[in-house]
Amino acid sequence: MEKNRYELGLEKLGEVDGDQGDKVIESLKDIAPDLGKFIIEFAFGDIYTRPALDLQERELVTLSCLTTLGATEKQLTVHINGALNVGIGQEKIIETFIQCIPYVGFPRVLNAVFVAKEVFQSRSF
Amino acid sequence: MEKNRYELGLEKLGEVDGDQGDKVIESLKDIAPDLGKFIIEFAFGDIYTRPALDLQERELVTLSCLTTLGATEKQLTVHINGALNVGIGQEKIIETFIQCIPYVGFPRVLNAVFVAKEVFQSRSF
Amino acid sequence: MEKNRYELGLEKLGEVDGDQGDKVIESLKDIAPDLGKFIIEFAFGDIYTRPALDLQERELVTLSCLTTLGATEKQLTVHINGALNVGIGQEKIIETFIQCIPYVGFPRVLNAVFVAKEVFQSRSF
Amino acid sequence: MEKNRYELGLEKLGEVDGDQGDKVIESLKDIAPDLGKFIIEFAFGDIYTRPALDLQERELVTLSCLTTLGATEKQLTVHINGALNVGIGQEKIIETFIQCIPYVGFPRVLNAVFVAKEVFQSRSF
Amino acid sequence: MEKNRYELGLEKLGEVDGDQGDKVIESLKDIAPDLGKFIIEFAFGDIYTRPALDLQERELVTLSCLTTLGATEKQLTVHINGALNVGIGQEKIIETFIQCIPYVGFPRVLNAVFVAKEVFQSRSF
Amino acid sequence: MEKNRYELGLEKLGEVDGDQGDKVIESLKDIAPDLGKFIIEFAFGDIYTRPALDLQERELVTLSCLTTLGATEKQLTVHINGALNVGIGQEKIIETFIQCIPYVGFPRVLNAVFVAKEVFQSRSF
Repeated sequence: MEKNRYELGLEKLGEVDGDQGDKVIESLKDIAPDLGKFIIEFAFGDIYTRPALDLQERELVTLSCLTTLGATEKQLTVHINGALNVGIGQEKIIETFIQCIPYVGFPRVLNAVFVAKEVFQSRSF
Repeated sequence: MEKNRYELGLEKLGEVDGDQGDKVIESLKDIAPDLGKFIIEFAFGDIYTRPALDLQERELVTLSCLTTLGATEKQLTVHINGALNVGIGQEKIIETFIQCIPYVGFPRVLNAVFVAKEVFQSRSF
Repeated sequence: MEKNRYELGLEKLGEVDGDQGDKVIESLKDIAPDLGKFIIEFAFGDIYTRPALDLQERELVTLSCLTTLGATEKQLTVHINGALNVGIGQEKIIETFIQCIPYVGFPRVLNAVFVAKEVFQSRSF
Repeated sequence: MEKNRYELGLEKLGEVDGDQGDKVIESLKDIAPDLGKFIIEFAFGDIYTRPALDLQERELVTLSCLTTLGATEKQLTVHINGALNVGIGQEKIIETFIQCIPYVGFPRVLNAVFVAKEVFQSRSF
Repeated sequence: MEKNRYELGLEKLGEVDGDQGDKVIESLKDIAPDLGKFIIEFAFGDIYTRPALDLQERELVTLSCLTTLGATEKQLTVHINGALNVGIGQEKIIETFIQCIPYVGFPRVLNAVFVAKEVFQSRSF
Repeated sequence: MEKNRYELGLEKLGEVDGDQGDKVIESLKDIAPDLGKFIIEFAFGDIYTRPALDLQERELVTLSCLTTLGATEKQLTVHINGALNVGIGQEKIIETFIQCIPYVGFPRVLNAVFVAKEVFQSRSF
């Protein structure tokens, strides 16, 4: 039987974010459960499952969006972990932030790099 | 003899942006020539020449930054052309914008897609 | 038979944006048809159909988001029309922009008001 | 005798933000007292007292602006409390954030919802 | 007799923006006259008249804000003219934009410089 | 012998940011040392050393950019210290933030002022 959008999204969320994504969804349960459902169904079920970009490329795009937006420490934590989970190395993650410098300036990039520093350290145990 | 930052940057600018980049630098000549120099030396000479990300990956990151920032039609025009120049197909460029939706919403993505539409049409002649 | 997300969204899009929304979807057909599909299914099918906020309140929120983002003239044109379509008066639309001043400053609000001026004039014939 | 802008603003600030607003003004006293005066006179005295939008509608607009801007946790805390104070229910506040998703993406909305979660919990005692 | 905030603001607006500011206020007359009033009373009457920064310093700050925000071509046109009106030279205006590069990146600065180019040319006749 | 960009930048960084800048560079050493190098060479070596704006004017511009961007508490801490180091008084720093209000609204300015409050207190011992 064909999987529905929720099932497809949950599978993809697990593949990308591991238990980090689960924690976000879990933390929404008592306050805005539908927001969690939309993240699973739309972001992961509809978008991340599409062809034309592979998961590593999708995470490069996501890291660039989050760096540019700013004020996204929680989301960067999830997606730096996600990038590592789908096989992007630490050096390439840092280089993605460095490529953002000419377009968004140093402050946004510094903030992203400091989140990466914490994520890399938390995974080294 | 080793090339200096300006020469390295000019070479890379040509590789990525073709004559589109030249036009930007040219248009700065009588108003802010050093701004053109910084784009060549720093953005293209220092950053685009680094390893760890290839040119296609750098353009994916750049397109994502410009989409997220908004109000970057001129720069998107240059870098959608740049993305095509380094071998990224039209479908993949559009998919990069679609991957941005969950992080930046529809308006920024719509604006980027409409710039892509114009660039794709202008190159089809 | 129950309507699916696409049908629900198309109906809601028509209710809010009239033929302005159709034109956006139409203009995406040859470049990014799935983007149009996501706007209909997700934005209008999933979100605009929810209870807890009525359509007038949803348009107030949307106008506030677009004003704050900036660089959203096309989307403001669609949603100022949308706000009028769902029964919000011109004075209330302008007042929504004025309420944004303390939070986003004058430039974003001025830009939104000048879009409203054009929309109001275009509908007065 | 007619109230001046400061008196009108202080009254409105109390009505909307209760003692949360007072605390902000108080915390500015020794560093930037005129900033507090401008918030009272201009934001609350000039803007919040106007007709055409009621206080509930003004808070919906304000929550939407703050969500879109990002990096506004302190201000969201004040205005989520403000929204509750003027009679907007918890469900409607969350729905306001959900209506922002298509325009600003998930990260800004997630951050706003997590602030709401803390505010709702802090008021449940 | 003491001037009121509106009179003080109108005087300051004339000093800074010349007839450019008048045109903005004029263009608001039939759509949002109170927005024009708030710009005069609050921005120019309350803020620009304060001590601690002179008019040249205020215009440097304003140009930096508008460059960083983006999507502010109209406001940059007014305030590049304003900067010239209060005696800031063309070179210093361009240098202000160049100082923004490390903090906001090249695209925002390029857009501001191209507005300056048009303003400088329009005044050279 | 002529100093190179790195040496010029390091000197300027020390002049502006004192040991605060060193700490940022130091904290990047094990995660993204080249990011520190680019800040020294490009931001401080290439940009801060230019004529046309003096160091006080450059810090006014920088504070305005950081206030407008938002989510820049760490960078504001460095540059409020930097502004004090190059001789800008506390009152003038606060006034710079107040001049930003009409262009960026109260939330960004409030956040900057609260960072200044902490910096001023930390230096009063």
